[in-house]
Amino acid sequence: MTDKKDVIERVRVGSPEGGYDVVFGASVDRADEYFDLDRRCLIVTDENTEPYAKRVAARCKEPRIVTFPAGEKTKCADSLQRIWKECCDANLARTDCVVAVGGGVIGDLAGFAAATYMRGIDFYNVPTTVLSQVDSSVGGKCAIDFAGYKNIVGAFYDPKAVLIDHSVLETLDRRQFACGVAEALKMAATFDAELFSEFEKEEKDYAALIKDAVKIKIDVVGRDRRESSLRRALNFGHTAAHAIESVSEFGDILHGEAVAIGMIPMAQGGARRRIKAVLEAEGLPTALPCGAEKLTEAVYHDKKMTGDGLIAVVCPEIGRFEFVKMTPEEFMRRTAEAL
Amino acid sequence: MTDKKDVIERVRVGSPEGGYDVVFGASVDRADEYFDLDRRCLIVTDENTEPYAKRVAARCKEPRIVTFPAGEKTKCADSLQRIWKECCDANLARTDCVVAVGGGVIGDLAGFAAATYMRGIDFYNVPTTVLSQVDSSVGGKCAIDFAGYKNIVGAFYDPKAVLIDHSVLETLDRRQFACGVAEALKMAATFDAELFSEFEKEEKDYAALIKDAVKIKIDVVGRDRRESSLRRALNFGHTAAHAIESVSEFGDILHGEAVAIGMIPMAQGGARRRIKAVLEAEGLPTALPCGAEKLTEAVYHDKKMTGDGLIAVVCPEIGRFEFVKMTPEEFMRRTAEAL
Repeated sequence: MTDKKDVIERVRVGSPEGGYDVVFGASVDRADEYFDLDRRCLIVTDENTEPYAKRVAARCKEPRIVTFPAGEKTKCADSLQRIWKECCDANLARTDCVVAVGGGVIGDLAGFAAATYMRGIDFYNVPTTVLSQVDSSVGGKCAIDFAGYKNIVGAFYDPKAVLIDHSVLETLDRRQFACGVAEALKMAATFDAELFSEFEKEEKDYAALIKDAVKIKIDVVGRDRRESSLRRALNFGHTAAHAIESVSEFGDILHGEAVAIGMIPMAQGGARRRIKAVLEAEGLPTALPCGAEKLTEAVYHDKKMTGDGLIAVVCPEIGRFEFVKMTPEEFMRRTAEAL
Repeated sequence: MTDKKDVIERVRVGSPEGGYDVVFGASVDRADEYFDLDRRCLIVTDENTEPYAKRVAARCKEPRIVTFPAGEKTKCADSLQRIWKECCDANLARTDCVVAVGGGVIGDLAGFAAATYMRGIDFYNVPTTVLSQVDSSVGGKCAIDFAGYKNIVGAFYDPKAVLIDHSVLETLDRRQFACGVAEALKMAATFDAELFSEFEKEEKDYAALIKDAVKIKIDVVGRDRRESSLRRALNFGHTAAHAIESVSEFGDILHGEAVAIGMIPMAQGGARRRIKAVLEAEGLPTALPCGAEKLTEAVYHDKKMTGDGLIAVVCPEIGRFEFVKMTPEEFMRRTAEAL
């Protein structure tokens, strides 16, 4: 995927709890050089990523692997309890650790379990999808879905370190890969015009694009972890995305695909055209998978998210963003017109 | 209970997140003067304390009460999920709040739910037992029991404020009342000889004793919330207590009673005699409710708590404590000899 995979780079994420390193270009086979695995380690993974989990386990003093079915349905209260139980059964103490080896679902779930078992034990993350490498593994947000709501219960809990091994993406299917590119594109579209133009090239160095997109995220969450201001810009495309996902009941449409669609109405003029062109080149969807009426219902249903109005993230030109307060009606009019 | 109940005193608890006030002597009927209840409020309570919850609800803009059976069994994963569900059904947003009105079980459970719903919404606590007023409501620890382990999953999560209404203790039964006194005595025994001597008087001003004991706790957790050093002193009597409780499977013996018993072997000479005398005067147990062998098993079973050795909190004389590293064998020998 890249000829630079042996170049290892550490980037520090700032955080109220002291921060942590994201290690780019490291191999899962050397996880013990970046994580303290000389103790009891509960490794959480899914059926697709279990081979990588086993390679990490080979570097642990006392590993125990718990494997879940792949997919969003795993991110539930039952899975959380299963991890708590495994922690108890493995006699994990405060000084032991949880390691996630998988995509965003596994990282979110394992992170929440680590945040709560004994009120918080060490957590390491090895994200194995573009999406999780680019987005969810950095920033300390973890959560599960509950009662039909996405990410409705969770915590802010930092990993001790994140290991990004680009080679694990080689086995990722094209659709999953494109989803991660959508999230990376989101950061470039709103924060970095120069990086965006790299996405418009015929030949892309994806490992470099991921690294640069993660660096944007690292900078943003370092300044606003709790999403009180700047971090909300990372929600570009996400209001429509959450509604699309809730309508499609998780699974028909992937999160990154929903974000791809959601960005379009919130971008203006030339920015919209350029974003759409990149999404099409990546094979990502650019049209609503359902009628606009159905989406309106979903936006209204979720009062917790929108309250009386919502703050939309708008991209007026590539490399910039604005927060625009709009009613759900304005939001839906804009979405229906653009898609 | 006291003629000083109209004297309201605020004490600030220091914390990495900014701290919060404990308001002593305030009435639940004026909760809105100390809490921001002008929003959606989910009030968590139990069958015994529901009347107080209703009085707090009368001060809320949009209250919703969820009532659990009284007792430790309520502090479980099912109850946690029930609160999450109530939060969803009540459409609680990030800007809404959870209010606990009850003893330690309710405070721990509701605090953990508030810590995790939407990754943390505002939490207020109205402790209604001596035990919770004196101990669990201050310090930001919340948790549930799981897989047979006490407090094995939870979080450090500060309330926005704690309201201590001494009048609610009037309906508390004598056994529950004495349990709280045991925890208050624990703080005096290890930190404050002058306060301890107040416990030895015939006529006690319990409201004043509670307030002074809480102030010790406020000072300790303000300096060491995460229990890396000083806060561990608050575990005086608790190692044996946890073992006693796990043997009695929650309920036969109350937490404060187990702590009362657990303090005795860890106190030396005159300190032991004086502690025992106060416990007896309060009608608290001072002997093991089971054979020492059974207790040994429980201490060994809990490897997560003890590891290879344990750090016992010892009281060499009233008003002082020491941390003493001992093996489970030494701990049990000492316990068997003293009780």
